[in-house]
Amino acid sequence: MLPRPSLDPRSEVPLYQQLYRHFIELIHSGALQRGERLPPTRELAGLLGLNRTTISAAYGLLEAAGFINGHVGRGSFVTGGMGPTAGLNWENILGPRSFITAPSFLSDPNVISFAVSCPSETLFPLDDWRASCDEVLSGPDLSSVLQLGSPGGYEPLRQYLMECSRNEGVLGEGDDIMITSGCQQALDLTRRVLIRPGEKVLLEEPVFPGLRNLFVEAEAHLTGIPVHREGMDVAQLARTATGGVRAIVLTSNFQNPTGATLPQAARESVLRVAQSSGAVLIENDIYGQLRYEGEPLPTLKQMDDTGDTILLRSFSKISFPGLRVGWVIGPRPVIARMMEAKQLSDLHSDQFSQAVLLRFALSGRQEKHHIRIRKAGAERLKATLTACDRYLPKGSLFTRPQGGMNLWVRLPAPLDAGELLARAQRAGATYLPGKYFAVALPEPASLRLSFAGLDPERIEAGIRILGELFTSELKQLSASSSREPAPATV
Amino acid sequence: MLPRPSLDPRSEVPLYQQLYRHFIELIHSGALQRGERLPPTRELAGLLGLNRTTISAAYGLLEAAGFINGHVGRGSFVTGGMGPTAGLNWENILGPRSFITAPSFLSDPNVISFAVSCPSETLFPLDDWRASCDEVLSGPDLSSVLQLGSPGGYEPLRQYLMECSRNEGVLGEGDDIMITSGCQQALDLTRRVLIRPGEKVLLEEPVFPGLRNLFVEAEAHLTGIPVHREGMDVAQLARTATGGVRAIVLTSNFQNPTGATLPQAARESVLRVAQSSGAVLIENDIYGQLRYEGEPLPTLKQMDDTGDTILLRSFSKISFPGLRVGWVIGPRPVIARMMEAKQLSDLHSDQFSQAVLLRFALSGRQEKHHIRIRKAGAERLKATLTACDRYLPKGSLFTRPQGGMNLWVRLPAPLDAGELLARAQRAGATYLPGKYFAVALPEPASLRLSFAGLDPERIEAGIRILGELFTSELKQLSASSSREPAPATV
Repeated sequence: MLPRPSLDPRSEVPLYQQLYRHFIELIHSGALQRGERLPPTRELAGLLGLNRTTISAAYGLLEAAGFINGHVGRGSFVTGGMGPTAGLNWENILGPRSFITAPSFLSDPNVISFAVSCPSETLFPLDDWRASCDEVLSGPDLSSVLQLGSPGGYEPLRQYLMECSRNEGVLGEGDDIMITSGCQQALDLTRRVLIRPGEKVLLEEPVFPGLRNLFVEAEAHLTGIPVHREGMDVAQLARTATGGVRAIVLTSNFQNPTGATLPQAARESVLRVAQSSGAVLIENDIYGQLRYEGEPLPTLKQMDDTGDTILLRSFSKISFPGLRVGWVIGPRPVIARMMEAKQLSDLHSDQFSQAVLLRFALSGRQEKHHIRIRKAGAERLKATLTACDRYLPKGSLFTRPQGGMNLWVRLPAPLDAGELLARAQRAGATYLPGKYFAVALPEPASLRLSFAGLDPERIEAGIRILGELFTSELKQLSASSSREPAPATV
Repeated sequence: MLPRPSLDPRSEVPLYQQLYRHFIELIHSGALQRGERLPPTRELAGLLGLNRTTISAAYGLLEAAGFINGHVGRGSFVTGGMGPTAGLNWENILGPRSFITAPSFLSDPNVISFAVSCPSETLFPLDDWRASCDEVLSGPDLSSVLQLGSPGGYEPLRQYLMECSRNEGVLGEGDDIMITSGCQQALDLTRRVLIRPGEKVLLEEPVFPGLRNLFVEAEAHLTGIPVHREGMDVAQLARTATGGVRAIVLTSNFQNPTGATLPQAARESVLRVAQSSGAVLIENDIYGQLRYEGEPLPTLKQMDDTGDTILLRSFSKISFPGLRVGWVIGPRPVIARMMEAKQLSDLHSDQFSQAVLLRFALSGRQEKHHIRIRKAGAERLKATLTACDRYLPKGSLFTRPQGGMNLWVRLPAPLDAGELLARAQRAGATYLPGKYFAVALPEPASLRLSFAGLDPERIEAGIRILGELFTSELKQLSASSSREPAPATV
């Protein structure tokens, strides 16, 4: 019998982290030995009077940190820990991990993967990329491209993006622009110059893990604002942003993971809330160019008369993710500080890819490519929605995005998308369960389907596999629950 | 009289939110103008047949979002429309800057610049780079190179570096390796996973500003250990590292800015100090391959039996700085954590450049290039030392490195290298004054000469300009001090 953890529900440390630390102590002290089985989540939850998701989150951290191995259907077992080293105690030095990372998926040609939000390799315009490379390789600036550059980015690309942004109305008089290594770095640098530990930041709920973990690592005080089909719940945002909020981070178009887009009226409200609360508005718009139907809406940045909104964009979703080129538009004082942070972070971004992407854009090849991926995206979105309508069990809810790469599914109770993942993979299709996207409210029934990387046939086949699994599981659960009625609540 | 809202009590949207949206529309349409008073809650509740708390909740949202102002006893009034607002106070939000950045120098062909520690563009093997690019562009992996990659780096390059490192004896059994965007990012990620505010870190004094500023930003407690001609003062290191030191960061070969190299015996002492104090040793070795004379020494990493040393290396100084490709070798638990930090920082580094650098290395072109830059470097170093001997004023001290890119000069008193910089630039030569390299002890008399980017003729001409300026200034100062004796100190 394991000692009972002393958990403090009023502590600033979330319960799942307290539990995580408790188990690490048990392992270090030898109370839990290598190979021993941890209590099942359901059992421990009952024993401690906690929510089962709390136990799962603690086990998730233990597994991610290599302390335990989970085997679907058999339970979680203590591993050998991180292994002894002669010298330093790295576990102590590094401390416990503060966040859960989503699992990475080995690409298995036999498994249809809806797990990654990125474009399809088969649509890459390789000849056009080669031609753009050749232009840089034979151009007069190759030496300076290969030489040390500036934190703001490769200047010709920066100038080009400034001109486009000015024409589009997203670069105001007080704004500046800088290149980053993709949108992730733009978020990281924004966080680095704006957020200090304990400051309040409002994120979308659900939100993509790379954004949430960044702010968890920064020890920000995070609150998730629910995202419905119609985008962020602005009423909830207004109630929450009542002063003392440092930043609001949101995706105006085709949010990851929900695919939701903020309607025009909601955009106005978000701006008002940000302005009245004094929060910095960070608008992530990396999917905006991937609209397959409907009319585009103005960005928050365009609508913002104060000019204070910070807008993030990237080539990753619309061209080549492997090159990591994004950019940020924002008020000059912020961009100046972000350039300093960039210099400390990695001096500057790779210049060769910046130079080639500039040729790709200037030559018209980029626009040609965008037309092609929007057409393909529309077909893929349609195939996804059709297959969801057809194969998902009755009672499933899912978003109907007009663009982007992702769609959010909520399965009927009592299905648990996280628990079903291993079986789905064995059956030949995979996805990312909702729990990885939670700020504070894990949705066991939810999952993200990233459809942009798959052709319509694979989408149909994959959603069929998932739908059949979910439907059969639902039938079994209903049958078993009718066999074993729950005791009366007294 | 205001239009009556059409409210739907069966909607998923709560009544107070429907009412909230109704009022926003009225304000946007101009039906409710700035300064107008909203109906009192009691009155509106009666009119609409709603509970008064519903009305209050809607008004609360409107106020939180900045659309109305409530005055107790007087009612609620519409605030300004969407017109320009004062905006955020960025100075307050960003706070004071925590460090001084070195000035950046516009490249002016008329000024001979010793200011930047990077290789010469004229030595770039452009044809070999083009050939390496062509191999990647025509190879079978181009699609996957352009696709989203892994935080650890482009796997074929990582495998190649692992093999080289194993052969060289710097990759032990407990080690792993990851690619970073240059050495600067390796330092940033190391800091990110190891250093918490207030922790003690020992750096070299003087040290390059990008390293110091990184740890200043992290609010580490910094102490500089003096670097003499013979590398870091290990006796001072031993006295300072008496426990409670989290990390020691040092450059074993051709340190920036001094050019000093740690002798063999000192390396052993540094390892002993690190091991006995429990500090993490971070060995920056980005200049090690640029040895122009003398025998190479083993790295600290090679000598470290515990395997705990973290070793940083990069292609930037030895190939193309514009590509930002470096790598880190260290114990698996640290590298695992750094990969997570990398994922939050920028997902992964640009893969195209990684793929081309791999071809550059595998084809033998890199080794050919290294032979060439070592030969050029030797000539440049010799030209620098000869010119310093010849032109610097009597009483000047300077290091005599055996490799690398930098040399450290201490001018005779009372010369101030920072004060003389503007005049030097007008005379046609520039450098970086010592004050930018200080951890705690600015040396006004010192300056860094970065010689690798200039050919021997420019080096001779530049140091001659500097030497003549320093010599004439020294004469004037001596003359004026002999004319105007200082008053007696009482």
